[in-house]
Amino acid sequence: MVLLNCDIGESFGAWTMGLDAEIMAHIDCANIACGFHAGDPGTMRKTVALALENQVRIGAHPAYPDLQGFGRRSMALAPQEVIDLLHYQIGALAGICRAQGGEVEYVKPHGALYNDMMGNATLLRAVFQAVASYGGVRLMLLGRADNSVAQALSDEFGVPLWFEAFSDRAYDGAGNLVARSLPGAVHHEPERIVAQALDLAQGKPLIASDGSALQLQVDTLCVHGDNAASVAAVRRIRHALDELKTA
Amino acid sequence: MVLLNCDIGESFGAWTMGLDAEIMAHIDCANIACGFHAGDPGTMRKTVALALENQVRIGAHPAYPDLQGFGRRSMALAPQEVIDLLHYQIGALAGICRAQGGEVEYVKPHGALYNDMMGNATLLRAVFQAVASYGGVRLMLLGRADNSVAQALSDEFGVPLWFEAFSDRAYDGAGNLVARSLPGAVHHEPERIVAQALDLAQGKPLIASDGSALQLQVDTLCVHGDNAASVAAVRRIRHALDELKTA
Amino acid sequence: MVLLNCDIGESFGAWTMGLDAEIMAHIDCANIACGFHAGDPGTMRKTVALALENQVRIGAHPAYPDLQGFGRRSMALAPQEVIDLLHYQIGALAGICRAQGGEVEYVKPHGALYNDMMGNATLLRAVFQAVASYGGVRLMLLGRADNSVAQALSDEFGVPLWFEAFSDRAYDGAGNLVARSLPGAVHHEPERIVAQALDLAQGKPLIASDGSALQLQVDTLCVHGDNAASVAAVRRIRHALDELKTA
Amino acid sequence: MVLLNCDIGESFGAWTMGLDAEIMAHIDCANIACGFHAGDPGTMRKTVALALENQVRIGAHPAYPDLQGFGRRSMALAPQEVIDLLHYQIGALAGICRAQGGEVEYVKPHGALYNDMMGNATLLRAVFQAVASYGGVRLMLLGRADNSVAQALSDEFGVPLWFEAFSDRAYDGAGNLVARSLPGAVHHEPERIVAQALDLAQGKPLIASDGSALQLQVDTLCVHGDNAASVAAVRRIRHALDELKTA
Repeated sequence: MVLLNCDIGESFGAWTMGLDAEIMAHIDCANIACGFHAGDPGTMRKTVALALENQVRIGAHPAYPDLQGFGRRSMALAPQEVIDLLHYQIGALAGICRAQGGEVEYVKPHGALYNDMMGNATLLRAVFQAVASYGGVRLMLLGRADNSVAQALSDEFGVPLWFEAFSDRAYDGAGNLVARSLPGAVHHEPERIVAQALDLAQGKPLIASDGSALQLQVDTLCVHGDNAASVAAVRRIRHALDELKTA
Repeated sequence: MVLLNCDIGESFGAWTMGLDAEIMAHIDCANIACGFHAGDPGTMRKTVALALENQVRIGAHPAYPDLQGFGRRSMALAPQEVIDLLHYQIGALAGICRAQGGEVEYVKPHGALYNDMMGNATLLRAVFQAVASYGGVRLMLLGRADNSVAQALSDEFGVPLWFEAFSDRAYDGAGNLVARSLPGAVHHEPERIVAQALDLAQGKPLIASDGSALQLQVDTLCVHGDNAASVAAVRRIRHALDELKTA
Repeated sequence: MVLLNCDIGESFGAWTMGLDAEIMAHIDCANIACGFHAGDPGTMRKTVALALENQVRIGAHPAYPDLQGFGRRSMALAPQEVIDLLHYQIGALAGICRAQGGEVEYVKPHGALYNDMMGNATLLRAVFQAVASYGGVRLMLLGRADNSVAQALSDEFGVPLWFEAFSDRAYDGAGNLVARSLPGAVHHEPERIVAQALDLAQGKPLIASDGSALQLQVDTLCVHGDNAASVAAVRRIRHALDELKTA
Repeated sequence: MVLLNCDIGESFGAWTMGLDAEIMAHIDCANIACGFHAGDPGTMRKTVALALENQVRIGAHPAYPDLQGFGRRSMALAPQEVIDLLHYQIGALAGICRAQGGEVEYVKPHGALYNDMMGNATLLRAVFQAVASYGGVRLMLLGRADNSVAQALSDEFGVPLWFEAFSDRAYDGAGNLVARSLPGAVHHEPERIVAQALDLAQGKPLIASDGSALQLQVDTLCVHGDNAASVAAVRRIRHALDELKTA
């Protein structure tokens, strides 16, 4: 059964972001910010508590050290620097989990680090090295038409994977997300988002931006809890998935 | 046998501090900076590697979030804020240790957090709570003439303690360190430092600044690796302690 | 005529705070965050532009270096450290103003720095020194029953002052704000807030928390733009003040 | 006459870097770090004081917001973000100068921002826009075989330029610095460094890495104060230049 994952715990200090308490009731996997792009120790504690109350799996959502840019600006880091910041951030979240009896089950890099990793083999390898040497956690990354590189790294490093897909984004023929700057990149109509979620969950192909059929391996769907509309969409996706399950 | 502990891993980015590689050969316990007052993920990785090579026990050295002030400026944090930042920093170091097969064995708060904790019962209780809820680690703190408060908290929270003493500092009659701003607060003559280290290690009383005899419980001596002179002093202390042991 | 001042530009990176565009239309003086507790270079640029469009005077709102704590946590800084961070933050805002043809006209320390300055003569003196050596700007601070210390410093350093008062806060007999932790410290009823604003603007005494009459020197009233209710209250205060003026 | 410029004020908090007091006596232009890659308000104050005592011109040395990476890691910032951070950092330094009666005379971007600007026309334009809108300051940048792009921007924006050259670096035929990763990129022999400085100061062509003659426009030479050897080299260059002048 496909899991719903959501970026969460993205408040910082006096600033709040996202409807964390509302979305947590509807998801399976919480990608919790670890303090480098968002989140602070107190926010992380509250987010972990919320995840545990809702029996949601906890994932680390590490990022480049760029609080002002919300981790969305690429930084030219050496592979070893990426490995180090991953261990630091995963560990920091694990420390906060441990104090509450929880555990980090997986890692999903955030923002520019995620995009850079999907586009740069050296960086992707560094991420696998980091996850493997940390040990005992999965890596969540973008499922594309051809996952052979990620699969080979998974085998080499013994890192289990979760491939994720997006129900509100358009894809190109290779299974990459269409850049947000292009028209039609993001779906806004709830009907369409729910329909794409169901297709992905059932293993049906999508129609890519070049008109081709795109078959994606989908272990988890990324959903959003930014505002009331996105929470409502997630509630509908959850409901539709539950009906699939009982059908 | 008394252990030698040292603050270490205090470089940051392009800036280096301390003769870490030299001092590591002579100590038992490495209090490793966790990124809030010093240390960065790369520095932490190298420091942990050095500790493991030298079979030195690893301790977290967490601090107030004050990189510019090196964690030496008191900050008015709520107890819960202190608990959260301890879990974050201990966890971050534990994550970096885990990737190398190491473990955090104890926690020694740094700088102003250490001083504030020794002078403020609410804060000390918060530190015990944090260490207890993290679990599986000791707390290193200042041994004084009367350790009953710390001992009671240790019993209440089930947190084992290591009391530390200083061989290069003058004490008042209650076993508090004489403030650095006062004359005679810091011993600079190597002979005197080594002599005080030996007295402390053998359980002999010191003469406090008010002339009284001061009996301290000493599990560990805090030494310094800032420069060649301090490393030389540590080498002498190590040698003297080894002779005691074999005597 | 009494001026309305408001803390503004308190967004940071991806996080927004305050209804800046709405409140700017109703105030005279914008206390703009300078990046240490809130604000970033881009937010500062936009806030300065908004102030200039609305012909609002620009003030620097410098703070302790504590982004996570929003500058609300006291830090034990040396007087020289406070002077330095004031020059840095005032200058940073002045640089952003200069690029748009604007100018910093005054300085109002923020949060814990403001409170600490009002309660600590050494710190207050450091703030005067900083403002005096920067030159050409006023200092905005709390007007109390007895302003003789501030007035003497103003004379000594040649720093012109603006005394501010709060229309939504209770005062003690000495003219200090009643701590937020105490009952009745903050007025929430719009009627009461507007009435206190009018009394302050007209030089009428308030009734302090101990029942005594409190006469305050008021050059400016501090108002808030956090949410729709506070903006509505400001609009009413502005309207009432305008009626006073034309009466 | 060619000016000697040096990156300076690169200490941060408890960490020191560079022999600032020694090198300041031998240079004409001090590129002072502004807090984003190095420098803090106190370090900036001391560095400005040192420059004023030595009658050295003060330049802002702004950088990407990357303290841990010392501003040496490229960050994918939008042009407007670069403009904003330049205004902020130049202003911050100007504020600290103003308190001491000094002035910022020029701007030299640091590290990765400098390299990115020299290689990216959009970024270079943003830097010119920032310097022009700040007003009243020069821009220092790399002189190359063909400076027509920089010269055109200088004319368009009315920003006066200082072209700099390096006496300890090898150049390619286009006048770009040979990458540090390549063999022979950095000259270490004092004789050679002094000889190249003299050639550059006298307008003689260098021999580029491809064997061609390279004619550079040189207003200023970049020298280093990192350690005793580099300070000694600068002393020799200064002496040689002074002899040229009196010859």
